[in-house]
Amino acid sequence: MDNDHKRSSLQSSRRGFLVAAGGAVAGGSLVARSASAAASVEAGPAPAQNKVEPFFGPHQGGIATAPTQIQTYFAAFDLQTDKLDDIVALLRRWTQTAARLASGGAAAGQPASVLAYDSGETLDLPASRLTITFGFGPTLFEKDGKDRYGLKSKRAEAFIDLPRFAGEQLVEGQTGGDISVQACSDDPQVAFHAVRQLAHVGEGFVSIRWAQSGFFANSAGKTPRNLMGFKDGTFNPPVSSPEAMEKFVWVGGEGPEWMRGGSYVVARRIRIALQHWDRMDLGFQQATIGRSKYSGAPLGAKNESDPFDFAAVDKDGNSVIPLNAHVRLAAPASNDGAQILRRGYSYNNGVSFTAERWPPWRQGIEYDAGTFFICYQRDPRTGFIKIFDTLSKIDALNQFATHVGSGIFACPPGAQPGGYIGDKLFA
Amino acid sequence: MDNDHKRSSLQSSRRGFLVAAGGAVAGGSLVARSASAAASVEAGPAPAQNKVEPFFGPHQGGIATAPTQIQTYFAAFDLQTDKLDDIVALLRRWTQTAARLASGGAAAGQPASVLAYDSGETLDLPASRLTITFGFGPTLFEKDGKDRYGLKSKRAEAFIDLPRFAGEQLVEGQTGGDISVQACSDDPQVAFHAVRQLAHVGEGFVSIRWAQSGFFANSAGKTPRNLMGFKDGTFNPPVSSPEAMEKFVWVGGEGPEWMRGGSYVVARRIRIALQHWDRMDLGFQQATIGRSKYSGAPLGAKNESDPFDFAAVDKDGNSVIPLNAHVRLAAPASNDGAQILRRGYSYNNGVSFTAERWPPWRQGIEYDAGTFFICYQRDPRTGFIKIFDTLSKIDALNQFATHVGSGIFACPPGAQPGGYIGDKLFA
Repeated sequence: MDNDHKRSSLQSSRRGFLVAAGGAVAGGSLVARSASAAASVEAGPAPAQNKVEPFFGPHQGGIATAPTQIQTYFAAFDLQTDKLDDIVALLRRWTQTAARLASGGAAAGQPASVLAYDSGETLDLPASRLTITFGFGPTLFEKDGKDRYGLKSKRAEAFIDLPRFAGEQLVEGQTGGDISVQACSDDPQVAFHAVRQLAHVGEGFVSIRWAQSGFFANSAGKTPRNLMGFKDGTFNPPVSSPEAMEKFVWVGGEGPEWMRGGSYVVARRIRIALQHWDRMDLGFQQATIGRSKYSGAPLGAKNESDPFDFAAVDKDGNSVIPLNAHVRLAAPASNDGAQILRRGYSYNNGVSFTAERWPPWRQGIEYDAGTFFICYQRDPRTGFIKIFDTLSKIDALNQFATHVGSGIFACPPGAQPGGYIGDKLFA
Repeated sequence: MDNDHKRSSLQSSRRGFLVAAGGAVAGGSLVARSASAAASVEAGPAPAQNKVEPFFGPHQGGIATAPTQIQTYFAAFDLQTDKLDDIVALLRRWTQTAARLASGGAAAGQPASVLAYDSGETLDLPASRLTITFGFGPTLFEKDGKDRYGLKSKRAEAFIDLPRFAGEQLVEGQTGGDISVQACSDDPQVAFHAVRQLAHVGEGFVSIRWAQSGFFANSAGKTPRNLMGFKDGTFNPPVSSPEAMEKFVWVGGEGPEWMRGGSYVVARRIRIALQHWDRMDLGFQQATIGRSKYSGAPLGAKNESDPFDFAAVDKDGNSVIPLNAHVRLAAPASNDGAQILRRGYSYNNGVSFTAERWPPWRQGIEYDAGTFFICYQRDPRTGFIKIFDTLSKIDALNQFATHVGSGIFACPPGAQPGGYIGDKLFA
């Protein structure tokens, strides 16, 4: 593997990095900006397109990065090698390449020589706040009962396979994977470009198993609405709070050393029966979610960030927020205080044939669109798995939402300059 | 069909329309802005997100609209009715709804009552330069030899079915359609939202046959690069030139009255073997396209907008721009002066299994991504069909590009207030 040109390009792009960011690349500015966020930490004013997000640091980018970039490209790779050394070489190369890309390498102002190793479609574009987040799938540690790389003993206790959930209709080719790579950016071309460069330099070692692009609307400081028209992401652990992040997102002393400062990601492609949804009247939609569609306020409340009053009943004694409303079942109060950091996107794959799984069991060509749900957590057992176990059984939303793709990955802490992503796992 | 609430919402949104555009909604401002564009009329400085593009006018929006919006959602519908009156009712309703949407109806500042008839996911968003362009497919005039709606005699002579081209691998479910609806916007949520509202109000009369979203990078005034990394759209008939538009894009006196001021659109989903492409060295890529990748200049020239010198040979007597280079074969000089208005996008549908159709005939999971090619022309026989006939046979690009979806549609002129899209066809 000839890494020389990558190493030198990495150095030159580090210079570009400092220039592009005006010198203010410290994590501190991130915190300062986030601290002013209101109820929704996902939203925020549109940042400058040329903003560079740091690649190296205690945590990987793309988890607490705020505001969430409006575009993503997520790919799950299968390993094609049986040698641990190859994985280490791959991750070293990927780390160098990712650092170059995040810094705006192969972006505006780069010399023509970048085309010796880069596909070039971002040459005229700014860094666009690109982050690249790597994760390791369960099959890296054990596949079909086999300890493929001698890593089985290092698997974290918390890193369990996702159980089978009620109602899910997972497509095998859109599920799982040995390594995940998620690129987030404010430009779709920059996000896809990043994964593509990594896939290219990894050729012979990895092949893409599944990939999905995602987006949300740039709603300029307001909580973005999902394709169901509802504000999505209102209550999230605030990324500006180190305490909340330690408690709910970052792996601490309970985990193996290689995961401390990392986080577990669960990605679910959730197809939404949008035609079916659009036929429902506003009251039914609001009862399904448990919020007012227009304001985002919990039913019975006034403002988006008002607390839920799950005990409230109307004059007939019925719950104001129905017992099977999505927000009730997903709320920390219904899950022993469990919280996950949702960082979801919408997806839009055109249309395809489908059979709806609820009355009136319509079949036909429908939107292959919905939510590309992505969440980060300190422990999936007490995070996504705990919360979604109940949801998958009785959430009113289930008649519109079907999980068709899935992945769980252990995202190690950020790399340090000179090191590489996941290096403590392979040390 | 209860159009009352739509009519009143249309009226109220017309007020919003004037407010949002600051009163300057005349087509003249569009021309004035475009006139300053250089070689590429597709690119331009990022316009204000809240810019409203006029819906009514001599031509439909989304054809000469400049700069081209960076996101699109294109849907082809099949009619589910056998009554001409239903089509007229549908088009009336669609015209009203499209005018509401383009004006920013259901966008920021709209009242909660909009949720009685709108799915709501653009409630916090500006108009984002939404345009909606309608077209009629050949099957509206004749399908399986049957004159379904008595319109056969009104079919324009120029509006022929696309012939079968060399190498194309069209998927039936991604090809054809009775009516096309293309939404273009600077926000993906706004574009999809528009088509979705139209599909919803058209329920019972139409069903979606195929749909594709597209995007390109916001390259701030420069010609955008496609996923092959090359600048795409450099030489286009300038939309700022009424003469060029009359000559190449708008149907004139040669067409039936209902098409005068309209244009024919050809849409092709072109899957690009990006992995294969990324393995090629820069020189090979440049010889394939016929341009320098970095500068966009024709091979042998210096600047992007320099003219092609197809006669130039190197010291060995070989053509500087190879005989099978894409730009040579697509150039007006190689096609009796033929020109089309390209308004293409990139598309990215993740990955899927494919078999490449050129050596080394690789099979596997590859990017389902490439170019969502869209072009407008006065006459498809002397436009896309003429140009692509040669390209499909000998273009060097063919070893990477496979046409997998296709549609041709007759886009009538713009509607006038009080009228509806295509009204002269049905008069």
